[in-house]
Amino acid sequence: MSELRQNMATKEWVIIANERAKRPDDYIEESQTHIITELGEVHDSNCPFCVGNEELDLEVERMPATGSWQTRVVYNKFPALLTRGELTRTFNGVHRWISGVGHHEIVVEHPQHNTTLALMTPEEIKLVLQIFYNRGWEIRKDSRIEQIIYFKNHRERAGASLKHPHSQIIGLPVVPTTIRHRIEEARRYFDDTGECVFCAMMRDELNKDKRLVLVSEHFVVFVLYAAPSPFHLWVIPRQHSVSFSYSQPDQMADLAVVLKNILRRLYIGLRDPPYNLIIRSAPVKEISNDYLHWYITIIPRLSRTAGFELGSGMFINPSLPEESAAFLRQVKI
Amino acid sequence: MSELRQNMATKEWVIIANERAKRPDDYIEESQTHIITELGEVHDSNCPFCVGNEELDLEVERMPATGSWQTRVVYNKFPALLTRGELTRTFNGVHRWISGVGHHEIVVEHPQHNTTLALMTPEEIKLVLQIFYNRGWEIRKDSRIEQIIYFKNHRERAGASLKHPHSQIIGLPVVPTTIRHRIEEARRYFDDTGECVFCAMMRDELNKDKRLVLVSEHFVVFVLYAAPSPFHLWVIPRQHSVSFSYSQPDQMADLAVVLKNILRRLYIGLRDPPYNLIIRSAPVKEISNDYLHWYITIIPRLSRTAGFELGSGMFINPSLPEESAAFLRQVKI
Repeated sequence: MSELRQNMATKEWVIIANERAKRPDDYIEESQTHIITELGEVHDSNCPFCVGNEELDLEVERMPATGSWQTRVVYNKFPALLTRGELTRTFNGVHRWISGVGHHEIVVEHPQHNTTLALMTPEEIKLVLQIFYNRGWEIRKDSRIEQIIYFKNHRERAGASLKHPHSQIIGLPVVPTTIRHRIEEARRYFDDTGECVFCAMMRDELNKDKRLVLVSEHFVVFVLYAAPSPFHLWVIPRQHSVSFSYSQPDQMADLAVVLKNILRRLYIGLRDPPYNLIIRSAPVKEISNDYLHWYITIIPRLSRTAGFELGSGMFINPSLPEESAAFLRQVKI
Repeated sequence: MSELRQNMATKEWVIIANERAKRPDDYIEESQTHIITELGEVHDSNCPFCVGNEELDLEVERMPATGSWQTRVVYNKFPALLTRGELTRTFNGVHRWISGVGHHEIVVEHPQHNTTLALMTPEEIKLVLQIFYNRGWEIRKDSRIEQIIYFKNHRERAGASLKHPHSQIIGLPVVPTTIRHRIEEARRYFDDTGECVFCAMMRDELNKDKRLVLVSEHFVVFVLYAAPSPFHLWVIPRQHSVSFSYSQPDQMADLAVVLKNILRRLYIGLRDPPYNLIIRSAPVKEISNDYLHWYITIIPRLSRTAGFELGSGMFINPSLPEESAAFLRQVKI
């Protein structure tokens, strides 16, 4: 029989649908079989992110700062929000609108066209994390900004329109309502129990050892108990902290190794599936508290969102989180 | 410049991204050009929903009750939730689960394999609505059920796995958290203003006449002011009522005509785009109140949900709702 499981952090219910269960192997067909040449040649002269085309986009920052770059940040040519402009709020009956000011930057993760995080070295991934961190602190200086979303869309099914490895940073002038609701749930859990729900969930995963994929000095990686979709992963720092922006150098170095390991398990085990990777941090003006805890979500895009999900906000996951975790653990990387 | 708009009913912000704006015509390429034969032959002997294969699924109800059927409901062969079984709740530390009991039924909308709601007659659509209504009342008799989701996935990109025109009904043993949050927002608006936020939004659309697509005796159809995605439509009853289950016969007849009209505008104007259609009704035990108002959402699936949306719960809509509405109004049906 199926089972409804609740995510204690968000209070969202998920249907773990055993009746239509798929084995971990079943997802390999749905993701594309992949060889590196499918990502194109090492260099594509038509790609705006390839070496030689650097002048096509306005650069924000590069690393290293001089000489040939290893990772760089550019302004999005078609930004969802513009950095210039005044933040205005208008209330007019049932209509409320805010001018579209904010930040929208692109992180070009690597000079090579046909690579991806799973194939990079931990040192290269660390540079990407470092440039996220730097940009986060720059964007935080803009007092109009309330929330920063760091995210990656890998492959077309996950929303990527360009093949060159890249991710994005959006600085928003509002705290999104969904994030507000999550904050309220976390605060309520803290008020009830006196502890951070994320710390409690992590400790439980460490104790039970049923859904763990990886444990490092600073991070724990597991398939979520109430995973809304197959192989839905949390990469969570062991030390309580509200934001990625407060990460220490040794945590960043460890995180690079952990991400490489996990993304390589997906890459090999599921043949380079499309995925989204998101850094979930507290609103920027929440400097510190006892109930919010930053983490990274990795969401392989192996199932479709359809009418039920749009209508209920609930998800039907046709895979068992415990089996997904066991599958990822045994992948030879 | 882009604009952030707030949906006053849900309090969710949407980025209406003018900088990357698409004209309504631009979406025609993304939906598939379509002729009826692409939906297959009139009859497909391999289709479980085609005439002659009725014994493949266990039937729940058919209309008309005797003779050859025009629409019928069957049990889902791979149900997300099972009707038989005991509703049990377990709380165990940070884990909460409920046995997967509920209802999962399929509405086979028409005997003909290669048709769709947009091509049916209003009388045929009315029968589909009538069978939704009947099943809703049957499912409401099951005291374990808290929420019913009626939905349709049209075409593969919207989650349909079979071509034969069909929709689904799921009866849930919980009120989903997202729906709880929406109820809270609606209640708060009522407490603040003394009126139903949905009534207020509908009245505003009727007064402004900027995003209206259709107005009938009993329903108003408009593109949402804070539409999360292109051509995101609300079909809302003019009379305040918490649930589709309290619809009167004259409203149902009118709704069939309205749906036919609107779905035909999408079919012709956007060349049969993939879409989800959802009936959003109050939890079944909310018999009546002043702040919830049922409606139908029609969501053409012309853009992708990527990392930003998953990370923030906010959507970026690259189309102007006012332009989308003007486009749909001028479609010759």
